[in-house]
Amino acid sequence: MRESAAPSAQGAAPGDQHVIGIDFGTLSGRAIVVRVADGAELGTAVHEYANAVIDDRLPATGERLAPEWALQEPNDWLEVLRRAVPAAVRDSGIDPATVIGVGTDFTASTPMPVTDDGTPLCRVDGLGGRPHAYPKLWKHHAAQAQADRINALAAERGEPWLARYGGAISSEWEFAKALQILEEDPEVYARIDKWVEAADWIVWQLTGTYVRNACTAGYKGILQDGAYPSREYLAALNPGFADFERKLDATIGQLGDSAGTLSDAAAALMGLPAGIAVAVGNVDAHVTAPAAKATAPGDMLAIMGTSTCHVMSSETLTEVPGMCGVVDGGIVAGLWGYEAGQSGVGDILAWYVANQVPPAIHEEARAAGRSVHEHLTELAWAEPVGAHGLVALDWHNGNRSVLVDASLSGLLVGTTIATRPEEVYRALVEATAFGTRVIVEAFGASGVPVERFFAAGGLLKNRRLMQTYADVLGMPISVIGSEQGPALGSAIHAAVAAGAYPDAVVAGDAMGNVVHEAYVPGPDAAPYDALYREYRELHDLFGRGGSDVMRRLKAIRREARAAAPAAAPQPQEATA
Amino acid sequence: MRESAAPSAQGAAPGDQHVIGIDFGTLSGRAIVVRVADGAELGTAVHEYANAVIDDRLPATGERLAPEWALQEPNDWLEVLRRAVPAAVRDSGIDPATVIGVGTDFTASTPMPVTDDGTPLCRVDGLGGRPHAYPKLWKHHAAQAQADRINALAAERGEPWLARYGGAISSEWEFAKALQILEEDPEVYARIDKWVEAADWIVWQLTGTYVRNACTAGYKGILQDGAYPSREYLAALNPGFADFERKLDATIGQLGDSAGTLSDAAAALMGLPAGIAVAVGNVDAHVTAPAAKATAPGDMLAIMGTSTCHVMSSETLTEVPGMCGVVDGGIVAGLWGYEAGQSGVGDILAWYVANQVPPAIHEEARAAGRSVHEHLTELAWAEPVGAHGLVALDWHNGNRSVLVDASLSGLLVGTTIATRPEEVYRALVEATAFGTRVIVEAFGASGVPVERFFAAGGLLKNRRLMQTYADVLGMPISVIGSEQGPALGSAIHAAVAAGAYPDAVVAGDAMGNVVHEAYVPGPDAAPYDALYREYRELHDLFGRGGSDVMRRLKAIRREARAAAPAAAPQPQEATA
Repeated sequence: MRESAAPSAQGAAPGDQHVIGIDFGTLSGRAIVVRVADGAELGTAVHEYANAVIDDRLPATGERLAPEWALQEPNDWLEVLRRAVPAAVRDSGIDPATVIGVGTDFTASTPMPVTDDGTPLCRVDGLGGRPHAYPKLWKHHAAQAQADRINALAAERGEPWLARYGGAISSEWEFAKALQILEEDPEVYARIDKWVEAADWIVWQLTGTYVRNACTAGYKGILQDGAYPSREYLAALNPGFADFERKLDATIGQLGDSAGTLSDAAAALMGLPAGIAVAVGNVDAHVTAPAAKATAPGDMLAIMGTSTCHVMSSETLTEVPGMCGVVDGGIVAGLWGYEAGQSGVGDILAWYVANQVPPAIHEEARAAGRSVHEHLTELAWAEPVGAHGLVALDWHNGNRSVLVDASLSGLLVGTTIATRPEEVYRALVEATAFGTRVIVEAFGASGVPVERFFAAGGLLKNRRLMQTYADVLGMPISVIGSEQGPALGSAIHAAVAAGAYPDAVVAGDAMGNVVHEAYVPGPDAAPYDALYREYRELHDLFGRGGSDVMRRLKAIRREARAAAPAAAPQPQEATA
Repeated sequence: MRESAAPSAQGAAPGDQHVIGIDFGTLSGRAIVVRVADGAELGTAVHEYANAVIDDRLPATGERLAPEWALQEPNDWLEVLRRAVPAAVRDSGIDPATVIGVGTDFTASTPMPVTDDGTPLCRVDGLGGRPHAYPKLWKHHAAQAQADRINALAAERGEPWLARYGGAISSEWEFAKALQILEEDPEVYARIDKWVEAADWIVWQLTGTYVRNACTAGYKGILQDGAYPSREYLAALNPGFADFERKLDATIGQLGDSAGTLSDAAAALMGLPAGIAVAVGNVDAHVTAPAAKATAPGDMLAIMGTSTCHVMSSETLTEVPGMCGVVDGGIVAGLWGYEAGQSGVGDILAWYVANQVPPAIHEEARAAGRSVHEHLTELAWAEPVGAHGLVALDWHNGNRSVLVDASLSGLLVGTTIATRPEEVYRALVEATAFGTRVIVEAFGASGVPVERFFAAGGLLKNRRLMQTYADVLGMPISVIGSEQGPALGSAIHAAVAAGAYPDAVVAGDAMGNVVHEAYVPGPDAAPYDALYREYRELHDLFGRGGSDVMRRLKAIRREARAAAPAAAPQPQEATA
């Protein structure tokens, strides 16, 4: 299926060459047009998925999905190619003939069942009404029971790959989600030829060939040192799961490599030249590292949004407690890529604003012409550090890194009847900063110190928050200069795949965009040190067994809800 | 000054006899007219104090008061006599000549400096501009430094009375407040002839003689086994404090006794017959026990409002950890009266509604035509026990009983981004119920078991809350049938003082008003047991030294505010 190159653009001067980066998010896809020479972002367009996240009813049948389910519709992704790419090209005003490559990134892990020719099972006759035939979005959390068994059995058998994931395989990843299909809809499972990350499926649609990217294969597919978990281990999980590897097996592509060239069909769909390079698939967080010029060993990049993902490359392979994973070439080819994360950051703040902020604050914010977040920030940071007398734990979504325990929960201590809403907001922001420091310290203690700290993502717009992070970390923070980090990162990988640069590091240096040391620790660093010690005490008390209150409360909550079926729909509704 | 009795009413049939109860609260005074025979409440009137609580500026000079100060104006109390009593009599339609006695109760400890003839120092020429010449309301908390020294020295010297107060004398009480005057305005201190509880000063105004009531003398004045703290102890606190006892010394009156008869002047002021009995002064919480018929040994009465005060009589003298005090005849003459308390209950809920409830809930409540408290209650109790997955500690105002530690603070654990505002509200209500259970269990473990539980106060109107208390305690709750418990209790004591009944117990049986076992434990009692265990674990963890995070946060808070003087006015402003 390899197409011939389009000579006109390939032969043009670098200043006239362009690449397309396409970022497939949770609710929409964005295409940008970037100049190869310097990374200038010349045009952009967004397409919202018609079906967004399918977590209530299956559109094809109206069937009710169980709690924790989250599916997507592959056609929504194809619409991004058909609509957003040409719109971005039009927005940029460039000649499509000057485009030399396409790069993509995707949410992960978002795996899907397909046939050998890449047809999603939900498009196969007779299977459109089966929920398990659809792609399972990253936030599909209904395979927790499978994940628990995967982890317990791996620990019991001493599986060597478990430590590469900080001791826990997530219910969001490929194995747990596939095992859920096997156990809940074996007929669909039997029809799966390939269990493919959406990140790779979309590249398959562009090139006509299936190349599995090293990033998701490693972080989400448990591919370590060239091997998947053993047949014996899988059979012990479930005899029917023994040959699961057959559904995963594929050529592995390194990040920045070309997965192939743009097919005639895909070129026609997007209005681009056929035959140009298409980069190997990638993940939204990891692809951002070169866009922020954060690719040197010891450069930690935090992508700060509803949750925060930390990625860092290193020459050293080690085990960091609770890391999400370490993968050879997981961020840039040739280095070990570490990933860690905080499962609640922006969404804790959003929860607080939606649920715990009184009318007066909303009215003041409106009168002042700013958002409630901005208003709370203005009020709260007028006080000196610690004047609120509060410390919070940022575990409202559990703890993903260091402790790796989804049964942990949020905590707030120090409230009095003089505590004001903005003070709690600040305590929550500080808790997320303390959570980041715990991760940075865990890397340092494990022999892979964080040398420089970079940040990208939606939370950059809160400057007080960013300064607090710098003060709490005691490190300067460099921030990405682009508002479309993942799409720019995809464009950079497109340029590498097209041969314009030798690798993503060099391409990132030329095309990335960073403001170095935009925030440096100030006089608040010392008082935050004192508050951080309180956070650490609570962290260890509730996270390391000093008190199991949080875990027992989750159990009490589950039992209470199970005893009241009217309040909580039963899972079997969706798995029948 | 003893007046002759008014023979017409004293000789009338009991069905025609009436008494007046006057309840002096924090912001207003209330008079009620009660029939002696059966306690029927025939008329009532309220007078709001013109100066309310003086905690910002001294009205006489405009001088700014320091934080934590709270004074009152004695004339405001006299206005209650002049206005509310005649208005209540008019409201009742009774003939004033049928009134045989007057009883009063007051906030406590509200001590005031007076001359030998009972003139408040703030009325003495040249002293009207001195803040320390005014009565110090119970909620004056600026003598904490003195209280800390009182406690430390007493512990060091092994003073025998300290255990009678659960190991801690409050900054609200007579000794700490007097010592503050000595140390901040020695000239005013030197002018004090008597340091009098407002509860006794008002009776002095009614009768013309000073009788010190056994209740405040014991609970607030450290009078134990007939003696005050020793001269040596006082001298060690401050040499100038050595003869403080001289300012306290007075005839002790037992509760229910007559302190004297109504003077001509007071009779004229109120439009009542001169010469009728005036009961010994009393305290709002303690006076309520006979009004709720909760006077038998082992009857615990909780007066549930912004805070909760627990009073219980017993034949046994023992030491209950963290009790506020045990006093001979402190509730009813002849029994040991125990007092305990929760420093935050209704005010925690009020704080939550004012600071942590979003606009949508306010709007829904308005649309449903109910208060925000009612609406949150309706929403929250639709779920089974424990379904919120939360536990709170109710220490937003510190912990007054069992732990006796003002440096403790509020805590909430178990929050997720699915936590709803009403769920937190319910967790706070439950926390206050758990706090009550801790106190009840401490009494039981100390050999003075709570046999029956009674409740009075403003929180009775929340029926869900009351049922929760019954479920959490695992005990039936009997509730007072009057909405004016303290005023009814004062009227009962007036009837005893007038000789209509032999004692307050018998009078309470005839005139009190209770709904026995209005709430009984239901099916939620067992699941609340599980949640209570979590509360206990957190209680002991943060309250008994497992973690000192709360105490350190208060210290951090103090230092942060001290370093930012603009944000916190300095105490010396008011004590110059």
